[in-house]
Formats: sequence, C-alpha cells, structure tokens
Amino acid sequence: MSTARLFLSDNAAPVHPAVWEAMRKADHADNPYDGDALSAELDARFSALFGRECAALWVATGTAANCLALATMCAPHGGVVCHREAHIEVDEGGAPGFFLHGAKLMLADGEGAKLTPQGVAAVIDPVRNDVHQVQPHALAITQASEYGRSYSPQELAALGAFAKERRLGLHMDGARFANAAAFLGGSAEQAARAAAGPVDSLAFGFIKNGGMGAEAVVLFDPEAASQVRYRRKRAGHLQCKGRYLAAQIIAMLDNDVWLANAAHANAAAAEIASACGERLMHPVEANELFVRLTAAERAMLRTEGFAFYDWGADAARFVTAWSTKDADASALAKAIAAL
Amino acid sequence: MSTARLFLSDNAAPVHPAVWEAMRKADHADNPYDGDALSAELDARFSALFGRECAALWVATGTAANCLALATMCAPHGGVVCHREAHIEVDEGGAPGFFLHGAKLMLADGEGAKLTPQGVAAVIDPVRNDVHQVQPHALAITQASEYGRSYSPQELAALGAFAKERRLGLHMDGARFANAAAFLGGSAEQAARAAAGPVDSLAFGFIKNGGMGAEAVVLFDPEAASQVRYRRKRAGHLQCKGRYLAAQIIAMLDNDVWLANAAHANAAAAEIASACGERLMHPVEANELFVRLTAAERAMLRTEGFAFYDWGADAARFVTAWSTKDADASALAKAIAAL
Amino acid sequence: MSTARLFLSDNAAPVHPAVWEAMRKADHADNPYDGDALSAELDARFSALFGRECAALWVATGTAANCLALATMCAPHGGVVCHREAHIEVDEGGAPGFFLHGAKLMLADGEGAKLTPQGVAAVIDPVRNDVHQVQPHALAITQASEYGRSYSPQELAALGAFAKERRLGLHMDGARFANAAAFLGGSAEQAARAAAGPVDSLAFGFIKNGGMGAEAVVLFDPEAASQVRYRRKRAGHLQCKGRYLAAQIIAMLDNDVWLANAAHANAAAAEIASACGERLMHPVEANELFVRLTAAERAMLRTEGFAFYDWGADAARFVTAWSTKDADASALAKAIAAL
Amino acid sequence: MSTARLFLSDNAAPVHPAVWEAMRKADHADNPYDGDALSAELDARFSALFGRECAALWVATGTAANCLALATMCAPHGGVVCHREAHIEVDEGGAPGFFLHGAKLMLADGEGAKLTPQGVAAVIDPVRNDVHQVQPHALAITQASEYGRSYSPQELAALGAFAKERRLGLHMDGARFANAAAFLGGSAEQAARAAAGPVDSLAFGFIKNGGMGAEAVVLFDPEAASQVRYRRKRAGHLQCKGRYLAAQIIAMLDNDVWLANAAHANAAAAEIASACGERLMHPVEANELFVRLTAAERAMLRTEGFAFYDWGADAARFVTAWSTKDADASALAKAIAAL
Repeated sequence: MSTARLFLSDNAAPVHPAVWEAMRKADHADNPYDGDALSAELDARFSALFGRECAALWVATGTAANCLALATMCAPHGGVVCHREAHIEVDEGGAPGFFLHGAKLMLADGEGAKLTPQGVAAVIDPVRNDVHQVQPHALAITQASEYGRSYSPQELAALGAFAKERRLGLHMDGARFANAAAFLGGSAEQAARAAAGPVDSLAFGFIKNGGMGAEAVVLFDPEAASQVRYRRKRAGHLQCKGRYLAAQIIAMLDNDVWLANAAHANAAAAEIASACGERLMHPVEANELFVRLTAAERAMLRTEGFAFYDWGADAARFVTAWSTKDADASALAKAIAAL
Repeated sequence: MSTARLFLSDNAAPVHPAVWEAMRKADHADNPYDGDALSAELDARFSALFGRECAALWVATGTAANCLALATMCAPHGGVVCHREAHIEVDEGGAPGFFLHGAKLMLADGEGAKLTPQGVAAVIDPVRNDVHQVQPHALAITQASEYGRSYSPQELAALGAFAKERRLGLHMDGARFANAAAFLGGSAEQAARAAAGPVDSLAFGFIKNGGMGAEAVVLFDPEAASQVRYRRKRAGHLQCKGRYLAAQIIAMLDNDVWLANAAHANAAAAEIASACGERLMHPVEANELFVRLTAAERAMLRTEGFAFYDWGADAARFVTAWSTKDADASALAKAIAAL
Repeated sequence: MSTARLFLSDNAAPVHPAVWEAMRKADHADNPYDGDALSAELDARFSALFGRECAALWVATGTAANCLALATMCAPHGGVVCHREAHIEVDEGGAPGFFLHGAKLMLADGEGAKLTPQGVAAVIDPVRNDVHQVQPHALAITQASEYGRSYSPQELAALGAFAKERRLGLHMDGARFANAAAFLGGSAEQAARAAAGPVDSLAFGFIKNGGMGAEAVVLFDPEAASQVRYRRKRAGHLQCKGRYLAAQIIAMLDNDVWLANAAHANAAAAEIASACGERLMHPVEANELFVRLTAAERAMLRTEGFAFYDWGADAARFVTAWSTKDADASALAKAIAAL
Repeated sequence: MSTARLFLSDNAAPVHPAVWEAMRKADHADNPYDGDALSAELDARFSALFGRECAALWVATGTAANCLALATMCAPHGGVVCHREAHIEVDEGGAPGFFLHGAKLMLADGEGAKLTPQGVAAVIDPVRNDVHQVQPHALAITQASEYGRSYSPQELAALGAFAKERRLGLHMDGARFANAAAFLGGSAEQAARAAAGPVDSLAFGFIKNGGMGAEAVVLFDPEAASQVRYRRKRAGHLQCKGRYLAAQIIAMLDNDVWLANAAHANAAAAEIASACGERLMHPVEANELFVRLTAAERAMLRTEGFAFYDWGADAARFVTAWSTKDADASALAKAIAAL
C-alpha cells in the first residue's frame, strides 16, 4: 500500500512528527486518567484559541466526541436534527442512539450536506407540539461537511440565531474542522473562531490531520462539561494514560501545526480541483473532491497508481491529507486533465 | 513526579520500548479502522496463545473491554454477578449500566475479592425465578483480583462448571491478567491458559503492563465476537488508526514481553512482601500489596520519597509495575522492614 | 362532545357492553399480576385462533405491545425497517428508541403506507455490510395500514418469505388488526389467520375495537415470549390486577365480538366510501377514510354536526368504530354526496 | 380462592364500588389520551389536596409511576439511594435500570426499611467525588415502608433538609401512601400533607386501595412534569382511553374514599396486631403485619382458611385491604391469640 499515491482517506495517513515527539516527551510516569499536567492545560489552550471560555476533553474518536457532546443537549426523549447524509446518521453504527439513550435523528436536506435554517425548519415545523411526536432538542452540523463544503461565518451566525430562537443546542462535528478553518483563512485564532461560529459544542478533529488517536470535545457550556466528564468515564473513554492523548492535541496546537497541516491538504485538493473543471460535483472548500469519472477513467487512473474510492457508479472521491506529497497531487491533477 | 519512587499505580507507568518501536514501525498509511494488516493478525495470535479458537479485538480501555464482553452475555433485563469490590462495580463510573442498558450488578462476597461458587450461590439462590426479580445471566471475575489475588486453575474450573450448570456466561476482567499468569507460572501458553481457565471472554490488559492505550477483548464465542464488532463501533471505540493499537498488542505478545514485564513487577512485589510479614492484609499473588501501616509510618515512608496511596486509615496500597526499578523495590522493602 | 356525530378516531369510542360485563365478573380477589385464571387462558385461546402455538400477554397500549415484541427481534445495535409513515415512527413519541435501547428505524416507502419486499430492499440493499452502518434486524408492518389498507395473504406471504431469506424478524402492528381481518373475511379463524400471515409477532389491538385498556402481544416464538415476560415487568407494564385486562380480551374473543365489532365499523366506512367516489385518496379496506374535501366543504360538514380531523389542507380523515351509529354513517354518506 | 379469608396482598383485592361507578359514568366518547375532561381535573385536585402547586398524571402501575418520577431527578450516570429492601430494588424487575438508562441504585440500611439521613450519609459519604464512582442524584423512600412503617412528618422534614443540603431529589414511592396518611391522621388534607412531607415527587398509589389500574405520579416541580408527559408516552404508558384511569383516581379522591379505605385496612391490621404481642417483627403503622409464626402455626392458620404468604422460615406476612371483612380480621386475631 505504501507505494501507491494515496487519496483514499485522510484517516489512513500516518502520524505527524511533532505528534510523535510530544508523545515521546510525555513518556514518563504521571498521574493517570486526566490528572496529568498536559491534560490540565487543555481548557486554557482552547479558551485562548476560541476567545471564549470553554472546557476541552480528549477522547479517542470523533464518534465519541460527537455523541458525548450531543448527549448534553438532547434528552433521551428528544431529537437531533442533522443532514440526511451526516456522518452521525450514516456512518457511526448507531452511536447516537446508544449515547443518547434512544433519542432520534431527524433528517434534513441541504445542498452539499449543509444545513440551513430553512432546511431545518422544513423538518421541525411540521412536528406537532405534543407528546406523540419526538420534539427537536438540538442541531448537529459538520464543518467541513460530508461533501467538503465549509460553512461561512454568516451561515453559522444564521444557524446560531435560529437555534437560539428555537431553543435548540448547536453542535458541530469537526472531523475536518481544521480544513474548514484553513479554507476560511486568517490567523489560527481568526480561522478557528470563524469556523466554529456560535456553536455550543465542537468535536475538534485531530486524527485525520496528523494525530494518532485523540480528538477534543470542546464545550462552551460549563454544565455540559461537567456532565461530559462523567459520561466519558461511563462510556469507557477515560484512558488511564491520558497524557499521551493530551500530548497529541497540544502538539497540534503548538506552532499552529493543526492549521498548517490542513492548509497543506487543502492546497493539494485545490490543485487537483483546478484540473477537474466541470467534473466537480461540489465546490472544493476543504480537502475532499467528488469528481465525475467514468468506470474506464477510474480504471485508467488506478493503472497509474492512484488509490481512491468510487463514489457511486459515475464518480470518485479523492481525499488529500497533511501527508499528501506535492508530487502526487500534481500528478493526479495532470492525469485527470489528460483524460 | 519523575524523581519519586513510584508505587502508586501501574497505570501511571510509561510505555515499554518494544511497544514504542512497534508503533513507529506501523507509522505508514494503511487501511483504516481494523482493516490493517496488524489488526488482522490478532485472532490467530490469541487463538494460538490460548489453544482454542477465539476472536480478539482491540479497545482503548479495560472498562470498554469488560463492558463490551459482558453485553454479549447479559440481556438488559438480566444481571451480572460480581464481587462487591469488583472494579466494574466500584470504579467504572456506572459503565456496565450504560453498555448493558440497565442490567444489574449483583454483588457477592468472597475472600480477597475473589468469587467462589458458594459465594455466588448465596446471591443467586435466593432470587425467585419470577419476573419481579432480576435473574442472573453472567458472572464476572477479576484475574488478578482487586486485592492482588490470583485464581488458581482449580478455582477457575470450579467456577466454570458452576457457570455452565447455572447457564451463566463467565467473563474475566484481566486488567492484571499478565500478573496472574506470571504468578501461576510456566511458558506463555501454559501461563495464559492456566490464568484464563474456561472463561467465555477475557479483557486482556496490556496498558498497566507496558502498553499505551490498547487492551484486547478476547471472545471464545464466535457469535459474541460478531456482536462486539458492531457494539465497539457503536460505542465510539473503533479507532480509525487502529493499527497503532494492534501494534501495541502484538509487540507485547512478541517475545512474551507481556509475561516478562509482569514477572518483573511480581518479583518486585514479592521482594517488598518479604519485608512486610504480619503487616500484609492479603497474600501477594500478583503486583499489588496491601500493607498495614500507621499514619506515622506512612508519613515516614513518604519522607523517604516513596509515593503510594493510603488504603483506609490504617493501611497503604503499593503497586509495582514493569518499570519499577529493582533498587526502588529493595529500598522500599528495607524501609518497611526498618519501621 | 357526546351529541356530535363522531368520526374522529376509534380510540375515542366507549367500551363494549360485553367487555364491561366480563370485567365485572372478574371483580373478586384473585392472584395478582398474571397469575389469575383468566390470564392463564390467553395462550390457549390465541393458539386456537391462529392455528399455531403462541403465547399471548396483555399490555395496556399498542405502543408497549409493538415495542416489547420488536425488542425480541432487534438488538440495540440493529435496525427495524418500517414505513416512513408508520405509527411507530411518527406517533409513538420515540418509544422504539426507548424499548429497543437506541435501535434505529429504517424508513421505507410503499403505497398506502404498506411495505413490499421491493420497498424494503430499496432501503436495506444499499446498507454496506460493515460495522459503520446499522444493519436491519426486523421488519414492522401495520395491518390495517395507517391509510386503512389491508395486506392480502399473498402480500403477507411475500413479505414473510423475504424476511426469512434476509433473516429478519417480522412484526405486525395490529392496532386495527380486527378491521383488516374483517375485510379479508371468513370465520374468525380464517380471518385471523389470513390477516396475520406468517408474522413472528403481532400486537393484536382491542382498545380501538371495544376494549378499555388491553391489547395482546402475540408471540409465535417461545423464546421471545419468555423475554417479553421479563421486559413487560421491567417496563412497568405488568399490572397487578391483570385479571381485568385478561377479562377484556377474553370478552372480545368470546362469540367473536372482535370480528363483529370490526365488521360493523368496516360496513359503516364502506357506506360512506360509496358516496365519496373520486374524493377517496385510498381504497377503503378497513375503517378509515381519507377524503378530498375543501376547507369550505369541511366547514359545511361540521355545521351539520360531523366531527372529524383535517388531513392536511385539502382533505379529511373519517374513522368509524364499533359504536358508530348506522344513522350517522348514512347521514355522513348523504352529506358528502350532496356537497 | 374467593371463599378464603384473604390476607395475601392488597393488590389482589377487588375494585371499590365508587370506582366502578365513576368508570361507567365515563363511558362515553371523549378526547383520547389525556385530553378528556377528567384528566384535565387532576392537577387542580392534587394541588388542592397537598396545598402546593403540582401536576398529576395517571399511569397504570406503581413501577411506572416511580420510575418516571425518578428519571426526572437522576441522570443516566447518577445514582438513586434507596433502602436495601426497597421495592424498586427488590421487586420491580430492574425497571429503574430501564427507565433511568442504567443509573445505579445505591443501597442504604435503616430500621423497618426506612431511610434516615444518617443511613444515607453512610452510603454516600464514602463515594469519592470523582468520575470513577457513581454520584448520588436522588433519594427514594417508601411511605408506608416495605415493612409497613410510616415516616413521621419530623422524619420526612429531616430527610427533606438532608436532600436539599446534598442537592438530591427526593422521591416517595407511595404504593401504600394512603395507609401511611391514615396512620398519621387528620383530615384528608392534613393526612396527605403529613404523609408526603417535602418530597419532590410522589407515586400516589390507588390500586392496592380500591382502584383497578390507575396510580398518580404527582410532581411538585413543573419542569419535571413536562418531562414526564413525554417520557410517559415514550414508555407506552399513555393510554388512549385515559378517561377511565382519571375516573378511578377522581372517584378515590371524591368523598375521601382513599382515606376511608385505608383507615379501614389499617383498623383491621391494628386489630390483628393487638393479638400478636411479642410475635410482631415490626410496629404496625399501616396495613401490613410481619408476624413470627412457626411452620406448624402457619399450617394451623391455613387449616382455618386464612390465606397469607410465608415470610422466610419462621414468620408470615398478613396484609389487610379496603375489602377485608371485619369478621375475617377478628377471626384472624382470635386464631393467632389462640395459638
């Protein structure tokens, strides 16, 4: 596999050197669980980044991060509105049903797998306000979306206002949060704040972006943070050598590695996108490309050593990563242009 | 903390060099989740070790390992009999209630936190066989126990026969399985088989014994294994870079590192034990010591640089690890002898 | 309300005299829960009716009946395929999520709110057979459907074969099972067997058809029956004076009251239907009519004393019951014809 | 069974005539679920009785009433402290685990199955305030207790103050609330208020006291009431012909039937108690007697036609009811005295 030019998924990428180094530096005895010095830094680091008070807890997966956050804002008898193609609906093996004790996902439509106030209203306005129907308690959006689209600050502000008006919690699945932030641009603080908008909680992904096994659940509501601490343990997600997870996250925050890595992946995606023209199914606003390609065309690309997933019968998905080689991206762009 | 002579907990120990090396070796792109080459080896490796067919899945914590296994043998309306001081009852934040959807822990007594058929019968025989009372579905035992006691093959055989007779599943929490195996002795295969006995499932702990964040759920029932694969994902425990967890486990199995590490910790414990005499509250059959010490005695030991937990008002708990220095163990033994 | 000509819902109807009489006859001390003589009759009565061995347990609501049965055939990590407009999806307040511990409802399409093998396949065939996606464990159909359509024996046989082939449980929500049976015709045994087809479990509704607060969960799998006994208690549905529930059900079975009541309701619906012509949105195969009526037409009917629910902006729903007066049905038919 | 002199359980008693009458009076079409006129009266009726604002919802069983109330005050990751012999722990088939999504029952000791602040503190003070241990969220007490003991207003005030200090919810299982109230004495309002004390919620039992299948969940916290409305539906406990349940409860409240029935049962118990002397295992403060009787003595009583349950090897439990005949109580008293 290692000799292929890989565009399968960023979750197959290796671990960034800075992360390795930080983990090795943490390799001494320290207090277990999250009692170590590194874990203790997280709240302050993320509060500084986002410019508002928050708590940040490490967990091993985005699935756990999303579900632990959602459980604080949606009661078991409530519902979470998400896009019909959201990862939590399609690809998390029913985890929200488990962590939220049977709460319901309420599926909305929206271009590019993005929600809008209108799209959400179309789902929740018809819900009768009675006990026979599950009432919405929260919204969950993905930044960047499942189709590699980024929410703009304006779009996030509109969703935040809508959520507030309807008394809904607002959670963000940020498996590729860094890619959205890099797309929106600016300093680390500017980019992070633009990409997060007014969300109540964020699953800030590091694993696809150079980490090994640590994501951060970022909670802007202190009561929610207290709940998540208990729920994390209860879900078997409080690792006893937590310092190795904290080290990963801090390494990514230090020197804005998270943003630089994402910018690299985005640039690779942009270069490939520039060769795709009309073939692109969605604007490329992060590190994923959905490209119309016939079976013959895909076969040809694979002959040239490119590895990627089919996307239905007539398209392919390419994902770039922090580790994508410039030469591979250029080669892919040329190969597509030459088809 | 690093300059102290640490006997706090083996879960504070650093990561073994062989584990680091294996993780670094795995640092290339590979299939995500458990689709990588290393994860694919696990079933065969554990089947060989135990001499019977099994499936083995990595997870990040012992809590998850225990609960995922128990959920396959106890329905939500059933109960799991465990010792009153079992870790799953006392120290897992209610995780069994979460993973088993409200199933009940039924608390039995037994010396040294070990269950016996008699102790279990005393709990389940009075349960009326009607729907008003929760019926037992499974037994959970800890090897080595919460007091550092190891079940002998004879004790395990008796529990296995009892479980079979009563149609109960039999699960083993093996957070310190290696220490029990090392205590029972023999080759890796002999020790592993002696320590596991006829259990249906085992949470085989590696983290306290030199790993970083990987335990193995070992399932001797193929149907259970299939269920656990789904439940692991659903619980957010299917890490996308799973190869780094598989690498840790395989590193521990290679060259019997798991057994050698545990033997080292046990030897350190034995040396300290030899100085404790009547002070010992429990025979030392693994790597934990529960030692009667007055507050003044404990203060004196701490002055000498020893770090450990109080155990109630009149005792202390010392835990040795793979990384315990011989000199520290000897020093502690001498210090206790000198009290 | 009592002077209106009521076509709101059959669940607003009073209790049938035979049911009252049986309840009064049960009004003496007897063993609590389901230890009484009447509850003990149920298994045999339903086994005789359906011509195959089954267990039958009373519960107070159709919601409980459906969910208790479904929980025996769908694990918490699995899914139940039902129609997008099924009552369990739309109107049971998320009860399946509660009773099935977070299992997922997978929504299929089909004319008249009825499932077909093709419609189900369209939902489950795209599900990848991996742990990231919830796998289907069961099908749930409604007889008669939410649009008053009845499954024919041929349709049920096809669904049964499909379910068997795909290893899915097959449950029937029979809130209006009697109406479907009456529509299919024949003796009580013939009608019941035709309407149930090869289902694994049936929520046999009596409340809308003359009962007060007793439905029967009918389980054709003995292992499922044993589970439901425990789960019923655990859900707070094992009433201590259960004999009054058993009495209701037996009163409905005696002299085929259940079938006669349903036939009466169906006949009233048929008479009204005959006046509706092109206005009918669905063939009338039970006791519900969905009729295209403008707001002005509905207002006119209400002026004449008819009570019914709007069905969207341009239609109305009329439901007949065992207690619908012939004169009211005729009057409604005439009033609609005269519009 | 009907010819025996029954002292088995008050839950085997028939239905009181006033309840029958009210149910028959409700036998006309009305709005389904709890939209009927009778259900609408409940909040006001109970608010007047208790002299403080509350919401009151009918459900079919005490198990459901207890668990629905507890779920509003204990999160899934929390614990409910109850007596080791509490009905919710011993005899509800694990229902709290189901309704509270895996929350833990924390078992306290106390004479006569009654909790005291000291007894509760003995359980919760040792709980470390960390995420590894389940934290207490609520207390549940039973009035009258499982041994027929009534909490005095002073005892309730002390528990209420303790609960407030520790920020714990306080729930009362009132399966025999009326018997405790009758024991405490005074007018209906006085007795009800004395027996309820400062609880946050009460499962007010009517079924053992003359009802058929309706208990009231009384919630003194409006937010809790709103939650319970949704959770009741979700648990399949929102019956569609709810008016028959509301009718039962109102019939019991009208003319203080609930208090008169309980006073009758208590008087019968007191008469029997007066003959028991040293045989009594617990003071008789409601309608249950626990009496030391040898196997031979019990056999003799049964020969004389008395029906009752053994209580272990050397005792018996007798329960009187609203329907206990004076002659039967006198006869039992004489028979015991004559032993």
